[in-house]
Amino acid sequence: MKDAKTISRAVINRIPKYYRFLCGLQRNGTQKISSGELASLMGVTASQIRQDFNCFGGFGQQGYGYNVESLINEMSDILGLGVSVPMILIGAGNLGRGIANSLDFGKLGFELTAIFDSDRMFTGLKVRGLPVRCFDELEEFCAVNRPRAAILCEQSGEVRETVLKLTELGIHTFWNFTQYDIDDVFPGITVENVCLSDSLMTLSFRMKNG
Amino acid sequence: MKDAKTISRAVINRIPKYYRFLCGLQRNGTQKISSGELASLMGVTASQIRQDFNCFGGFGQQGYGYNVESLINEMSDILGLGVSVPMILIGAGNLGRGIANSLDFGKLGFELTAIFDSDRMFTGLKVRGLPVRCFDELEEFCAVNRPRAAILCEQSGEVRETVLKLTELGIHTFWNFTQYDIDDVFPGITVENVCLSDSLMTLSFRMKNG
Repeated sequence: MKDAKTISRAVINRIPKYYRFLCGLQRNGTQKISSGELASLMGVTASQIRQDFNCFGGFGQQGYGYNVESLINEMSDILGLGVSVPMILIGAGNLGRGIANSLDFGKLGFELTAIFDSDRMFTGLKVRGLPVRCFDELEEFCAVNRPRAAILCEQSGEVRETVLKLTELGIHTFWNFTQYDIDDVFPGITVENVCLSDSLMTLSFRMKNG
Repeated sequence: MKDAKTISRAVINRIPKYYRFLCGLQRNGTQKISSGELASLMGVTASQIRQDFNCFGGFGQQGYGYNVESLINEMSDILGLGVSVPMILIGAGNLGRGIANSLDFGKLGFELTAIFDSDRMFTGLKVRGLPVRCFDELEEFCAVNRPRAAILCEQSGEVRETVLKLTELGIHTFWNFTQYDIDDVFPGITVENVCLSDSLMTLSFRMKNG
């Protein structure tokens, strides 16, 4: 594999999609697939698939097709899915609860270990079997359990302060669902921003200007 | 404004972010801003902002700065936020309920008018004040109320069939949260795919190869 830092964001963003497609193929009994077949299923070009795969060492011998199971295993390794990183959720409102309850974190490289909300209204509520904790417990929890990633689902405007506090507690990886873009504000952290309202506005634009 | 079809996806994806930033500035009392100031706040270059804005007609006189309120109004028009398109939600599970309850659809160009789930376990449950309906009611509801967009939050593997049925009922705009990429399968529809598991896998890769 190339140095991960030299692989473009566009390529990195496509790897989970390849992985997802290949898992679907495996469920349907496919054992071997050519880049051409995979390309036509995914609506991309075979050349793009070969170029993308080459960033990670190629995954197989050209002309012979790819072994689906090996490809899945190699991609799982690359994506780090076999290593469960302890992750906490900040914000137990509607969206936070929806995300906590709908994803299979264990299959995606993480383990949800605690849920916090600054609003004491939620304290003690069980979400996915975990009791919602108040912010007062955050410091001690992190000292003892050392979570390394956080999902940010706070609705309020204090995201900046929360991120600052979490970085001091050793968390530098964020899955950010808030309205605040945090990547440029805090250097040295890893962030995936998922701004649902941006996505819906983009859909509005595309529909109304289609 | 240029023909919307000639504006690149990258530019279109940035417009909601500009809009969101500008609304934040307006809440803080800012009335005027230069492209340089906006660029530094958003972590992009002033030249990118000017180029992006030029796709939509420029929005102001170079050298004099932008009037924040006018810019917000023009972007709102471009994004079509003033026109509420009736939208239905398919899938009243954890993620569907989380999305239905956490977004201000009215401010984002849509109105959530009904919720459907194929699982009768959910029938009658109230989500955001709307009763969850069973699939049997879909056809009549669409004939009477003419929704034009759908949020897809089904967990099962029948997304393709659902999309096919919905297109027959006059819905061609989809906000897709399922594991199934539908844009290439059905030509002539408008889709925004939000695949949360892809996003979390990307975060896993970036954290573990950082």
